[in-house]
Amino acid sequence: MYYGSIEAGGTKFVCAVGNDQGDIQEAIQIKTEAPEVTMPKVINFFKQYSLKAMGIGSFGPVDIDKGSRTYGNITSTPKLAWRDYPLVQTIQEAFPIPIEFNTDVNAAALGEATLGAAKGLDSCLYITVGTGVGAGAVVHGELLSGLSHPEMGHILIPRHPKDTYEGKCPYHKGCLEGLAAGPAIEARWGQKGVALSDRKDVWELEAFYIAEALMQYILILSPRKIILGGGVMKQKQLFPLIQDKVKALLNGYLALPEVTEAIESYIVPPGLGDHAGITGGLILAKQAERASEKANI
Amino acid sequence: MYYGSIEAGGTKFVCAVGNDQGDIQEAIQIKTEAPEVTMPKVINFFKQYSLKAMGIGSFGPVDIDKGSRTYGNITSTPKLAWRDYPLVQTIQEAFPIPIEFNTDVNAAALGEATLGAAKGLDSCLYITVGTGVGAGAVVHGELLSGLSHPEMGHILIPRHPKDTYEGKCPYHKGCLEGLAAGPAIEARWGQKGVALSDRKDVWELEAFYIAEALMQYILILSPRKIILGGGVMKQKQLFPLIQDKVKALLNGYLALPEVTEAIESYIVPPGLGDHAGITGGLILAKQAERASEKANI
Repeated sequence: MYYGSIEAGGTKFVCAVGNDQGDIQEAIQIKTEAPEVTMPKVINFFKQYSLKAMGIGSFGPVDIDKGSRTYGNITSTPKLAWRDYPLVQTIQEAFPIPIEFNTDVNAAALGEATLGAAKGLDSCLYITVGTGVGAGAVVHGELLSGLSHPEMGHILIPRHPKDTYEGKCPYHKGCLEGLAAGPAIEARWGQKGVALSDRKDVWELEAFYIAEALMQYILILSPRKIILGGGVMKQKQLFPLIQDKVKALLNGYLALPEVTEAIESYIVPPGLGDHAGITGGLILAKQAERASEKANI
Repeated sequence: MYYGSIEAGGTKFVCAVGNDQGDIQEAIQIKTEAPEVTMPKVINFFKQYSLKAMGIGSFGPVDIDKGSRTYGNITSTPKLAWRDYPLVQTIQEAFPIPIEFNTDVNAAALGEATLGAAKGLDSCLYITVGTGVGAGAVVHGELLSGLSHPEMGHILIPRHPKDTYEGKCPYHKGCLEGLAAGPAIEARWGQKGVALSDRKDVWELEAFYIAEALMQYILILSPRKIILGGGVMKQKQLFPLIQDKVKALLNGYLALPEVTEAIESYIVPPGLGDHAGITGGLILAKQAERASEKANI
């Protein structure tokens, strides 16, 4: 008996079976096409196994309010084929097992807090900088939620005085995602980030924006660890630039060693590498099983 | 037997005794001078009563980490006489009763979530805009903390293109507090806010900055209710301006009725008026008593 995990992304679905220690028995990647193409492949993969429970972390926005009529749906995504798609319901109909559902980045945050760079801590922030910018957080040991899940990639940040690029977000132009996600890098500099790795000015500007965002996250959430993942963060030269800039921006205001002398171990890459999300899905599956056991007592 | 509550502010200490329903039996205000002047007056007030427990909400930054050697201290405040002052220890030595300690704004958030505008909700954000800007939050029913308490007043926000005032924060110049707190209003316009209440341009700019901040808070924390208090928010004309601007900034990105059609009941004044903080202190006192009972079982 395995736990199932789905990391539903805008470009690919990762599906895996494993245990709650993060040991993945088998995994596949499925290209994200229209739901009627992608979902049967997802279901076929899992049909090979006997599953106890399933955890799903999805691109969003999603409805994670269990009391809502549209719980489990992908909601107002710009990917039109997936708008209002009942993701959880579709999986639930194929697998009558406990399912827990959240955003991809919240799942990744949970993975990192349970088995990764923030293992043993009751709070952390996981940020992915890739084709978009997203973030999830664990607060008091639980995935952060309120009215809905966070949408931290779209915060406003002061623009660098020399940056004339207007920003790529269709909703907010120059929000964090609009200025700092992969497509913004490509639009601003005329080449993909991977082709620009030796361009110091590219990464200094990128670090500037990411550091501004981290300052907001730190002042608002006070996470015990910040984990930066995603395609753009493969440019490892970003880490020291970001760490230095966050320190400079905070300017000694927070008298906390984590953000002053020890910032190198405060702002870190994922401990689980590219598996933070899919591992988080296994933890979500475990939570689904526990919740179901509790409900049946 | 009463609960005691202290709202320790930079200009005054409010001290009260009451019950956990927010009924205040008696309260006094004591001017904030040096600790050796102010604290004996605080202690003398409470010595008149038989107290079960005490809750303290203080200006900060403060050390709220119970495992820390400096727990209960006011830490790196610009008010030099209070820097590193052992506030909780001083009260504890005078009153050998359970004490719970947090920031003034976290106490106010707890008051509002328990008995005020966010009563019955498991999350809310309380923001005060006055001589400074501070915010506290309840998340999953608990006061938000991580590495430390939030310091949300110092977030960075994009500057209004027509605003040439550089900002007043000694650490970050044009952070939210540096651009939008009372002293910034006075420095920018040459008069105190109260003397400017009929100046439309003043409050449009103020609403612009507060709305930018609320956008960050909403995207990061997703609170179920936002409560705006403090001296500057006595300018009630700010509320509709802020509500409209938040909607415009989010630009339909969040498909949540609370931030679209019902924003007037989402961004609201304190349900407890000026008593949010002192009432929160009574709730903290109740929590202190409960924690102590648990520890003694």
